[in-house]
Amino acid sequence: LGTRAVEIELPIVLDRVRGGLRRQLEEALRTAIRNGSLRAGTTLPSTRTLAGDLGVSRRLVVDSYAQLAAEGYLAPAPRSGTRVSELATAVAQAAPTPTADTPKYDLRPGTPDLAGFPRTAWRRATASVLRRAPDDALRYPDPRGHPELRRAVAEYVRRVRGVACDDGRVVICSGVREALSLLADVLADRRGTIGVEDPGLHEGGEIITAAGAGVCAVPVDGDGLCTDRLLAADPDAVLVTPAHQFPTGVPLAAVRRSELVAWARRGRLVIEDDYDAEYRYDRSPLQAVQGLAPDHVAYVGSVSKTLAPALRLGWLVLPPGLVAPVTEAKRLRDGGTGTLAQLALAHLIESGDYDRHLRRARLRYRARRDALLHALGLHIPAARVAGISAGLHVLVTLPPQTDLPALESSARRRRLAITPVARFYRLPPPAAAPQLVVGYGNVDAAAAEAAVRLLAEAIDDARSAGA
Amino acid sequence: LGTRAVEIELPIVLDRVRGGLRRQLEEALRTAIRNGSLRAGTTLPSTRTLAGDLGVSRRLVVDSYAQLAAEGYLAPAPRSGTRVSELATAVAQAAPTPTADTPKYDLRPGTPDLAGFPRTAWRRATASVLRRAPDDALRYPDPRGHPELRRAVAEYVRRVRGVACDDGRVVICSGVREALSLLADVLADRRGTIGVEDPGLHEGGEIITAAGAGVCAVPVDGDGLCTDRLLAADPDAVLVTPAHQFPTGVPLAAVRRSELVAWARRGRLVIEDDYDAEYRYDRSPLQAVQGLAPDHVAYVGSVSKTLAPALRLGWLVLPPGLVAPVTEAKRLRDGGTGTLAQLALAHLIESGDYDRHLRRARLRYRARRDALLHALGLHIPAARVAGISAGLHVLVTLPPQTDLPALESSARRRRLAITPVARFYRLPPPAAAPQLVVGYGNVDAAAAEAAVRLLAEAIDDARSAGA
Repeated sequence: LGTRAVEIELPIVLDRVRGGLRRQLEEALRTAIRNGSLRAGTTLPSTRTLAGDLGVSRRLVVDSYAQLAAEGYLAPAPRSGTRVSELATAVAQAAPTPTADTPKYDLRPGTPDLAGFPRTAWRRATASVLRRAPDDALRYPDPRGHPELRRAVAEYVRRVRGVACDDGRVVICSGVREALSLLADVLADRRGTIGVEDPGLHEGGEIITAAGAGVCAVPVDGDGLCTDRLLAADPDAVLVTPAHQFPTGVPLAAVRRSELVAWARRGRLVIEDDYDAEYRYDRSPLQAVQGLAPDHVAYVGSVSKTLAPALRLGWLVLPPGLVAPVTEAKRLRDGGTGTLAQLALAHLIESGDYDRHLRRARLRYRARRDALLHALGLHIPAARVAGISAGLHVLVTLPPQTDLPALESSARRRRLAITPVARFYRLPPPAAAPQLVVGYGNVDAAAAEAAVRLLAEAIDDARSAGA
Repeated sequence: LGTRAVEIELPIVLDRVRGGLRRQLEEALRTAIRNGSLRAGTTLPSTRTLAGDLGVSRRLVVDSYAQLAAEGYLAPAPRSGTRVSELATAVAQAAPTPTADTPKYDLRPGTPDLAGFPRTAWRRATASVLRRAPDDALRYPDPRGHPELRRAVAEYVRRVRGVACDDGRVVICSGVREALSLLADVLADRRGTIGVEDPGLHEGGEIITAAGAGVCAVPVDGDGLCTDRLLAADPDAVLVTPAHQFPTGVPLAAVRRSELVAWARRGRLVIEDDYDAEYRYDRSPLQAVQGLAPDHVAYVGSVSKTLAPALRLGWLVLPPGLVAPVTEAKRLRDGGTGTLAQLALAHLIESGDYDRHLRRARLRYRARRDALLHALGLHIPAARVAGISAGLHVLVTLPPQTDLPALESSARRRRLAITPVARFYRLPPPAAAPQLVVGYGNVDAAAAEAAVRLLAEAIDDARSAGA
């Protein structure tokens, strides 16, 4: 359709209708060199010849050759013409990305109700930010976070979690994971060691090690972190989940809270991970330990369980002495967290939309928990369930004779994803009945019924396999 | 107005209209303990007495005391009543945040045209993402980045920068700063050293050191990085700005590109920072060095100069062997970059809005450059200007007798922010005429005229001070 193609021995086609002939010629030469059609050392046609073949001006070819020589693709050799540079070779193709086969039912912990994400509220908040924010908000961010979000977070955690702070102590980050990594980074500079709960949060130890700090495991029992063991190991800091231990679901007992705080006051640091603080169903939430010793506790939280993990937004509330080093670590890692998302969250909190969303979410999660408990009672009556009063997961103790490896492979065959508690231990797990951590945040009532039914079948399989 | 306040010797006021009496009582007690009104060791009134004083049920007070005991604020002492825990003390107030006094005119480099940020296009892209993205996009992100953006970036850098890649080589990150920090992190694990251009990008050395890798300075001259000095120092990697060296503005000469690539092919790594690649005014852009040796170059770019630094979005295009370790470092630092912003950028690129924005921006920046050059010619005719054909900054060589410290303080008095080139040297700068790096990205024609006039006055001051 009006296109006139000109071909020479070089694999070059110029499209005169499209225009930009010089650009087309250069791109064609680069491609030919990169994919090996034009090999290193090959002498190119003279500029006069190529210009004639292509029906373009000689100047255009001269300029193109010069451009590619400047880029290193061609090596102009005086008297012997222009050659393809020795440096140009074919590009290795990277292997295609492997795709994981996704489970049909997913009882793993850690994912909130993704369908419940307040898309409309987030869109409105973003639109409002883009309408109102001054141009200066588009600069490189303050590595501590935008003042508006720091203020909103300070107010929120004071009100909802009893955290003692002003916004001067708040540093915005990309979630609890980054919060921990930044703290570990600062402690690594002091050659510090961080204790982690055992069993404890996924990857806590890995993150600390990657940041260069030491790790030691501190056992957890039915009253939460064993403070006697903490005092004996006496690391520089300890990562704890006092409100709702992960994965056991127990709150830290009052006497242990006191012991933990007394220990921290002797120059240690408590890293309080308040990962699912917003979800309590049957009693008042325990307020944050931070409120008891704000100068010795780094309180960390995020929106990963309240809005969506994909937002990558979280916060630290720090003892005054840690604000500067954590900010500096953040500055040198990435210069700060994206401002527009920060401002959208600030808008969501300040408008009251965040609280409204949480109230609705709490009701939905309580219903999901009840559906899960009902299904477990119906299909696996021999299982015992604990840690049900808060959060988005429960601890299910299976009948003692259940063979875990057999259960896991049987579940996999049914495309049911499950998580044994044993995975969260660093020390050898106690020889007890096999347990699963069952997340219900992203599992509605129908899915809970179906998934638990599959789990019951898998348990039956595993028992007959073990028998 | 219907509110009946009840006061006791405890500083507690319950608002019966508002309701939530138990919550109010608990919060009042926590506040009193934290701010020191209730001191450690103080015995609280008995539950019966307090219930009578406040006019509430005894059960409510018993429950409140139990809650605060569980949180560690109160210590129930059998037979002697309930006391304020020894652990509870007043909260130290952090100092208020210091505010920097902002300049009136800012000729520092590094900030693009913030008023030109395509707010409407970004809002539409976000709205489209929130309408179309499946719930699964709200999970914890792939630490490599969302497949849609990786695909869009691969296509974009292939097309615009001659980068040889497929999306399997692309890792999304929070800007060039994080890209460098991640690479330094991986090299630090191998006890590697990274060369940096001297003079060179702000903070490059700092970022590398913070990530634990070694740094060495490699001099830059009028042909860009001195490759002979690179070969002599022979670090494991080198960070370069071949298309438009920062701050000198020179492109890397063709023969040096070849030497750089040949060096990299001997098992070294080139980190190619393509920080302002999109802005060329007077000639075709040099394509990326990466295209010549994709298995030996880590290409890094971002939207900090094309959209806004506040977005914190960038990318790495990696040799195949570095994809896994960089992804792992990213996973353990923050779990990945926020997905919604990634998808918005992918939408912007795929819809063509990004290209349209860049075309408009290129025209605007060329006009701003011309306005700056005109003002410099008019007010400071003795200055020589270089590096004008690309990017968002120029290099201004001042009359030799200008006293730089005097100039800086004189400019500061006029609330004019300037940046001497000397700031970008790690090695002792050559004894040459004083130079400034002058950024014009965020300086419109009127501001350029006013700022250069102030600069001329400041130079006059500095010369008379030096005389």
